[in-house]
Amino acid sequence: MGNKGNGGQSPIHRRYNFCAGPAALPTAVLERARDELLDYHGRGLSVMEMSHRGEDFVAIAEQAEADLRELLAIPDNYRVLFTQGGASLQFAAVPYNLLGHGGSANFLYTGIWGKKAMAEARHLFGGAPVAASSEASGHTEVPRQSDIVLSDDAAYLHYTANETIGGLAFDYVPEAVQPDGREVPLVCDMSSSILSGALDVSKFGVIYAGAQKNIGPAGLVVVIVREDLLDRARADMPSLLGYKTLAEAGSMVNTPATYSWYLAGLVFQWLKNDIGGLAAMDAINRRKAETLYAAIDASDFYANPIARRNRSRMNIPFVLADDRLDEPFLEEAEAAGLLNLKGHRSVGGMRASLYNAVPEAAVEALVDFMADFEKRKG
Amino acid sequence: MGNKGNGGQSPIHRRYNFCAGPAALPTAVLERARDELLDYHGRGLSVMEMSHRGEDFVAIAEQAEADLRELLAIPDNYRVLFTQGGASLQFAAVPYNLLGHGGSANFLYTGIWGKKAMAEARHLFGGAPVAASSEASGHTEVPRQSDIVLSDDAAYLHYTANETIGGLAFDYVPEAVQPDGREVPLVCDMSSSILSGALDVSKFGVIYAGAQKNIGPAGLVVVIVREDLLDRARADMPSLLGYKTLAEAGSMVNTPATYSWYLAGLVFQWLKNDIGGLAAMDAINRRKAETLYAAIDASDFYANPIARRNRSRMNIPFVLADDRLDEPFLEEAEAAGLLNLKGHRSVGGMRASLYNAVPEAAVEALVDFMADFEKRKG
Repeated sequence: MGNKGNGGQSPIHRRYNFCAGPAALPTAVLERARDELLDYHGRGLSVMEMSHRGEDFVAIAEQAEADLRELLAIPDNYRVLFTQGGASLQFAAVPYNLLGHGGSANFLYTGIWGKKAMAEARHLFGGAPVAASSEASGHTEVPRQSDIVLSDDAAYLHYTANETIGGLAFDYVPEAVQPDGREVPLVCDMSSSILSGALDVSKFGVIYAGAQKNIGPAGLVVVIVREDLLDRARADMPSLLGYKTLAEAGSMVNTPATYSWYLAGLVFQWLKNDIGGLAAMDAINRRKAETLYAAIDASDFYANPIARRNRSRMNIPFVLADDRLDEPFLEEAEAAGLLNLKGHRSVGGMRASLYNAVPEAAVEALVDFMADFEKRKG
Repeated sequence: MGNKGNGGQSPIHRRYNFCAGPAALPTAVLERARDELLDYHGRGLSVMEMSHRGEDFVAIAEQAEADLRELLAIPDNYRVLFTQGGASLQFAAVPYNLLGHGGSANFLYTGIWGKKAMAEARHLFGGAPVAASSEASGHTEVPRQSDIVLSDDAAYLHYTANETIGGLAFDYVPEAVQPDGREVPLVCDMSSSILSGALDVSKFGVIYAGAQKNIGPAGLVVVIVREDLLDRARADMPSLLGYKTLAEAGSMVNTPATYSWYLAGLVFQWLKNDIGGLAAMDAINRRKAETLYAAIDASDFYANPIARRNRSRMNIPFVLADDRLDEPFLEEAEAAGLLNLKGHRSVGGMRASLYNAVPEAAVEALVDFMADFEKRKG
């Protein structure tokens, strides 16, 4: 079929990609994937052509899980699932899996993704009270622990660690405790912040994350679930959404998204070997975010509305003082090799997503461009 | 992270891959994907790093749909969905989407995959009568049209066009007609035979197919649904399984499996431009299957149990006269560059899957090897 695209002969130019997801992947990971694409380790076929039950793919899958467990120090009493449908299908899977003994899903409502998770739980089972909300602040500041009030029948508490669109992040892990002291499982949509730094998994009942930010390509979702929660499922759910079913089958109830799983494994290897683990990743992410927020705060031309303690390190929305300059800003940024800075269609403005694979040099190039643009247009 | 695998320097050896799925992909498609992996058309990023709502990916997605429509001559009153979870999640999605007006799912039961589809419909909604079965023949011959008896409350008739494990294929498109003449929608799991030849889509209400045989990598599933069926859904289903929801959002309710969608598009291009369309593909597939069945039938050493009219062209199981030779057969085949010939773990023996991407030369190499093996061991 020939090379109508960027053929093997053409030079490869990687640009800085601030997309919110699907998002930048490490260049080293893509190079490795490219070199192995037609012939994995001399086996004569691509990873995407392998049986998911064959020796080679099973080794890839197990290594990926082992590396993720090591990176996040996942305790032995948690199962790791590599499944499909994105975080959005988990909006249904979580209540199916955790409401089998009755009770209601409780939510911390801090933005668009939390609202979607809540809407799906209500669509399926009604109820789903809000245990605390940031709505009054326009989702610029997350509720404090003391604001969180669970319903008497709470079966679990769900929250969104980092709101990808709003750029709002929790600066603490909430405790899901009833007034009478009873603790319920904490469930977290960690799609846009997982692996950005170290984490105490033992505080959570369920963590889930769509892959397309810090893990790998879209279509894969990782679920980390505490073993004792595997027996709380409703009977009436689609079998493939069942955590217990998936756990017992090693996530191979049906054919998993094998190539995405393999790429996730390469990302985990990169985090371990090239970056040096999550403490090192955390430091890099802190520097990147500080650099960009400092540039925004030092200027009257750019602004970010989020309370400082809740500013996301992964997704940094900002507006220009004059929104007639939005279009020229985006055009010039793209011409300068800074891609996908447009804010989400629901909020407008700009957004720079600084996921793990976005290098510090990208942020430096961005703040240089912003300063120059302000000088010329401000 | 270096090249610990088959680095850029090593020669690439593609072997013949008879895997039942995930399965062989065309080498030309993988070469194109490799060349574009780090930098798609000079854009400076990979397709898997692109926003699914950006101009470039939307063009990729639309082209893939247009090419699929052209290949299968899909009528305008059908919608094409590119969604996630594999065909197995469709085992749930189909009854959710088609039983909203009551009635029951009816099944033609011809093997393991049909049984799984039936089991999931029963798990969710009970009922699901068998309208005809090949069980009495040991699933070696599909029911005739005259054997098919729908239940009075049939809402649709589901069948599996090609049983991947049994190697049993329908040689006709069943009519789903009640004794009183009322027609109900025909639903087909076409995972392992779609695009293997021309098709009259207008005979079907719903066609669905997991990608990992003739379309692309695992994790993507294509659904082709007649528009008038979009309003028959139950209210209580996970939103992401809704055909109407997906159709209205152009399959982008949430982030789709973008890279798999792109690869599917490359496969469609290959079918159109390199193969010359489905009539040409059909002729190639006929020759491949005839070559292998002829070799099996000419020998007392190899056997295939399926009635001739129902022999699959895509998945050809066969047994050796002496199953103590299974292990040496597989070892020697692998050494000869013929991969993944082991039968499904539930049935044993051998299975050669001859999907579109398996070249005629692979089948010739296989029958040569089989003849040689028989001469030495038979």
